[in-house]
Amino acid sequence: MTYSLVDLRSDTVTRPTDGMRRAMAEAEVGDDVYGEDACVNALEERVADLFGHEAALFVPSGTMGNQIGMRLVCEPGQEVLGDAEAHVVTYEMGAAAAVFGLSTRTVVSAGCRLDAAQLIEQVRPRGDWHLTATAAIAVENTHNRGGGLVQPLDQLQQLWDWSRGAGVAVHLDGARVWNAAVASGVPLSTYGRLADTASVCLSKGLGAPVGSVLVAGAERIAAARLWRKRLGGGMRQAGVLAAAGLHALDHHLDRLADDHARARTLAERLGADPSRVETNMVVLEDVAAPVVAEAARAQGVLVGQVGPRRIRLVTHLDVDDAAVDRAATVLGDLLRR
Amino acid sequence: MTYSLVDLRSDTVTRPTDGMRRAMAEAEVGDDVYGEDACVNALEERVADLFGHEAALFVPSGTMGNQIGMRLVCEPGQEVLGDAEAHVVTYEMGAAAAVFGLSTRTVVSAGCRLDAAQLIEQVRPRGDWHLTATAAIAVENTHNRGGGLVQPLDQLQQLWDWSRGAGVAVHLDGARVWNAAVASGVPLSTYGRLADTASVCLSKGLGAPVGSVLVAGAERIAAARLWRKRLGGGMRQAGVLAAAGLHALDHHLDRLADDHARARTLAERLGADPSRVETNMVVLEDVAAPVVAEAARAQGVLVGQVGPRRIRLVTHLDVDDAAVDRAATVLGDLLRR
Amino acid sequence: MTYSLVDLRSDTVTRPTDGMRRAMAEAEVGDDVYGEDACVNALEERVADLFGHEAALFVPSGTMGNQIGMRLVCEPGQEVLGDAEAHVVTYEMGAAAAVFGLSTRTVVSAGCRLDAAQLIEQVRPRGDWHLTATAAIAVENTHNRGGGLVQPLDQLQQLWDWSRGAGVAVHLDGARVWNAAVASGVPLSTYGRLADTASVCLSKGLGAPVGSVLVAGAERIAAARLWRKRLGGGMRQAGVLAAAGLHALDHHLDRLADDHARARTLAERLGADPSRVETNMVVLEDVAAPVVAEAARAQGVLVGQVGPRRIRLVTHLDVDDAAVDRAATVLGDLLRR
Amino acid sequence: MTYSLVDLRSDTVTRPTDGMRRAMAEAEVGDDVYGEDACVNALEERVADLFGHEAALFVPSGTMGNQIGMRLVCEPGQEVLGDAEAHVVTYEMGAAAAVFGLSTRTVVSAGCRLDAAQLIEQVRPRGDWHLTATAAIAVENTHNRGGGLVQPLDQLQQLWDWSRGAGVAVHLDGARVWNAAVASGVPLSTYGRLADTASVCLSKGLGAPVGSVLVAGAERIAAARLWRKRLGGGMRQAGVLAAAGLHALDHHLDRLADDHARARTLAERLGADPSRVETNMVVLEDVAAPVVAEAARAQGVLVGQVGPRRIRLVTHLDVDDAAVDRAATVLGDLLRR
Repeated sequence: MTYSLVDLRSDTVTRPTDGMRRAMAEAEVGDDVYGEDACVNALEERVADLFGHEAALFVPSGTMGNQIGMRLVCEPGQEVLGDAEAHVVTYEMGAAAAVFGLSTRTVVSAGCRLDAAQLIEQVRPRGDWHLTATAAIAVENTHNRGGGLVQPLDQLQQLWDWSRGAGVAVHLDGARVWNAAVASGVPLSTYGRLADTASVCLSKGLGAPVGSVLVAGAERIAAARLWRKRLGGGMRQAGVLAAAGLHALDHHLDRLADDHARARTLAERLGADPSRVETNMVVLEDVAAPVVAEAARAQGVLVGQVGPRRIRLVTHLDVDDAAVDRAATVLGDLLRR
Repeated sequence: MTYSLVDLRSDTVTRPTDGMRRAMAEAEVGDDVYGEDACVNALEERVADLFGHEAALFVPSGTMGNQIGMRLVCEPGQEVLGDAEAHVVTYEMGAAAAVFGLSTRTVVSAGCRLDAAQLIEQVRPRGDWHLTATAAIAVENTHNRGGGLVQPLDQLQQLWDWSRGAGVAVHLDGARVWNAAVASGVPLSTYGRLADTASVCLSKGLGAPVGSVLVAGAERIAAARLWRKRLGGGMRQAGVLAAAGLHALDHHLDRLADDHARARTLAERLGADPSRVETNMVVLEDVAAPVVAEAARAQGVLVGQVGPRRIRLVTHLDVDDAAVDRAATVLGDLLRR
Repeated sequence: MTYSLVDLRSDTVTRPTDGMRRAMAEAEVGDDVYGEDACVNALEERVADLFGHEAALFVPSGTMGNQIGMRLVCEPGQEVLGDAEAHVVTYEMGAAAAVFGLSTRTVVSAGCRLDAAQLIEQVRPRGDWHLTATAAIAVENTHNRGGGLVQPLDQLQQLWDWSRGAGVAVHLDGARVWNAAVASGVPLSTYGRLADTASVCLSKGLGAPVGSVLVAGAERIAAARLWRKRLGGGMRQAGVLAAAGLHALDHHLDRLADDHARARTLAERLGADPSRVETNMVVLEDVAAPVVAEAARAQGVLVGQVGPRRIRLVTHLDVDDAAVDRAATVLGDLLRR
Repeated sequence: MTYSLVDLRSDTVTRPTDGMRRAMAEAEVGDDVYGEDACVNALEERVADLFGHEAALFVPSGTMGNQIGMRLVCEPGQEVLGDAEAHVVTYEMGAAAAVFGLSTRTVVSAGCRLDAAQLIEQVRPRGDWHLTATAAIAVENTHNRGGGLVQPLDQLQQLWDWSRGAGVAVHLDGARVWNAAVASGVPLSTYGRLADTASVCLSKGLGAPVGSVLVAGAERIAAARLWRKRLGGGMRQAGVLAAAGLHALDHHLDRLADDHARARTLAERLGADPSRVETNMVVLEDVAAPVVAEAARAQGVLVGQVGPRRIRLVTHLDVDDAAVDRAATVLGDLLRR
């Protein structure tokens, strides 16, 4: 299959490879609502292991993984604290409040970089008769609106250490935690053990078509299973999707380093600061986003508009060196005008 | 692939056929969150057409289809009226209330058969300062807990005609409306036009691994798309699933008649009243359900326990004549004891 | 103050007596949000004691008392089971679902009389992956739509005994439990100890202008205090209302026997079966409710229409013998036509 | 009645005057759930008129007024935007999310002063498939955490003018809007017409024991009446409270100027900047709040701790010149140490 377009809008646009399609076609499946789907069970066990948690649950999307994850550690009337650009509060359509009755409150962090002390200072106690109690803190790693930023391990550790004494939970939005691990060399299990609940996506850099996995303790995952059903996320022969996830873990994890290298190349060729490219995203600031995006599209290069003067380029499985070259040429021309 | 078990627990257990797997493996896909998945778009258009509605939305499960469908026609604080055995109130874990703030109220109908007058009599007005207003009535066709019962067309019509003047909406839980249409000869479009919103499943008799479709007017489906995202049902390259649905519509719709014939055969051989077998389910009453189920399982026949003295057998794509024969032999022996 | 009307619509219409007004005017008050209102504290302590519970909370209405009471023993996604005519599901505008995400499910009981076995049979287990788990059962005593029916003590006891082993809570809607106690001779503390949570009203037969009290264990009441604030039921110098409640407990409890006697008189004079008048309500069946109500109103007698062919008469503090005589004369004439 | 304490914690602690108590004792009341309470009706009409709105609703608290007010202009899944210190997001226990499913998002404004442009810039559009749509903006005037700050009229006007074209509603938390009007000379009707919905409190500076009033258009107030019932805010003879509110409007509105003068006196005597005292609050910064508060309490002066190094003093009906003098003496001594 060849794609004439170079699609840099997001790493969610990847299409399954031939090998992945084959894995899906040959998957041994069962009815997962009955817990009988071999591929789903294998995937859940594997991802739980990777992150050092007891259990895991396959869900149709990162939004469901995040929202259920936060619900597991926050009750209606309490709040989840996070940064103002976090996906869980910005891009998930108010689900926390609308679906679960959870408040969200945010702090503005410099460049979306986690600052444990800043968050800790904002935490509000339980049992007060006016204040909304802070039950959990959400961390995003890598940070989407932060341009693929890898969160500093020392800040994650500091937040975690504090949280144990404070009775405040930590939820990790790990949609792209794979990129963080590959870029930083920090093991997935380290990121995993610094969170009570974590949602990780198979459908972004890993290139699977559908699905995310929520990891947590066994009791929490049992509760999550009921919430998944209640939200309509219980699927039948979901093994056809889980097989893609297993294939992705086998074949597409290490190769994320290539995406990162290509992102740096793009940055260099487009005059962006490569030191700010930590994973697979390049953010171009101070450009006439709609104009550039439209002109690029006319030449077969799709880019993300993440603000009126801001363009985002994301490398992924379907973007090879030739595609990077083509995108750099087309966009370079446009930017020089 | 051969399956040594005869699994009559539900028609949700079907596994994709080789042809279906091939269709999935070759599916042309895109990012459905961006509306770019060709298979999803084709499926939505086709199902909307089949039911005579303007638009449709692919969702991961019947629960999500039903719950969003009801939310589209009922506001928090209002109620959906249905029968006491309806899937939407019995088997969906309190989602209407928990997720959307909708009350549900039920009437006990004789054998789960729709009685329009009985429901209409229970409707409560809007604007009262005490009563919970009835915004919608939910109908299930075929009726799961009613043993695959096909709802009478005249009752559906009567309910619909009344509802137009009353400002009360009708939601169809059409998880198995395909079976109703094949059994009754009533076109799908007739069932469709007697409902404001309808959820139909691809993963039951039709044999697709995952997915349901919600049909309604265009404006409602636009709102449903936002609710799907909020619930975490927005998937990326969902075309791998939609392709299975399209294949199922091509190849597995007419063959439901075979499932119905096999269900009647089972009823006859097991001494149940075949006149009560309207589609693909046989209910055995007054049996020691746990004992029989356990003993049958030991001989490779799985049955559904839907009550302490009630067993349900469901025929489907993975149950052929030989399987029916085997199940009838095993169960017949057990029942005679 | 004289009232020319005889108002039999409900016992909620009573106006504070001169003595009660004096008590309110002289009440020692403080800021109850800070827990500093002496009258509120005294009332809460007194009502807790009366029902044999650890703690109590003053709330603005029976609806708030009932809904918070049920929320204390039921989580979003679980259900409260009750009878189909219960105030908590019929007359509270879908609050359980809309505000708290609680499902409600009902059984039709004969004449609204509690049948413990019937309810117990409908209970659904926790942890199932389809069914909405039953967390609590709601009982109403006396039963409003049951015409002021006193619930049988043996059924209350049977339900309670079963519930302890089953892990299902019991909530008492005791809006008129005072009438039940006076009519049956069963102590309030007995009714109290057969419930995990109970809401009792000061503004009905007791004649206070505003307010109800929720009783439960100390930990639950602490949680209830937060929910009350969240719902907007936290009031400041609420002692002006609590003083009326304390006055009512001193002066209006025993006199409920007079209301009951007057209700029987009304029943006799109007040809209703006095044996069905257990407390302060008389239900007239098979009358043209709107016509009779309108004609009675024209002669200064207000009655409740609780159905198209059903009228309800409620005796209370503002209905003396003369008022009963007048109402019986007016209504007797109308019914004879 | 004499109070030996000088209570400067909040203006919510005021106790009804003798005149107010007399008004309550003589109030003509009825059943407000039936709309028959003369005092409640008179109060609602009067407050609606004062703010230039069509209708009004008496509610038990400012929290209920604010939360219902926001619900009238925001749907579950949408968001209300406000400032990070706003009472509606800080001090109302997460009600917006927990009770109504509304998201709240905040901006940090300089000193809590309304900056229309800053809020407008943060508004997110409707219909986007990721973003939480901004349906309403909440404004607080005077601003509690802002130390009784009066919001600039030009900013209110600018926000309002913009909002009309943008389809975004404005909710006014006017708990202390009376103080704003008295301090600024801006009529209440001007503040009223710059908001779609407004909640104003009778129980703060005005000195009534209980109650707030929500004002809005007639259709919205009709909807609010149902929500009030659903939340448990429907009260019976609420006229005993409304009478206090009417009395307060007659006698306690103009006198707020005295509270403001006394606050300035306090500021001067305690070395705070009197130009920052716009209404009835004085904030002392950089003091050891717990130590000072405890020592003052020992001498009969109660102050509010609104931060570890921040004390708030609020003047009100129960604080006369002698009380100010005493408080200034006691606190002055403590601060000098």
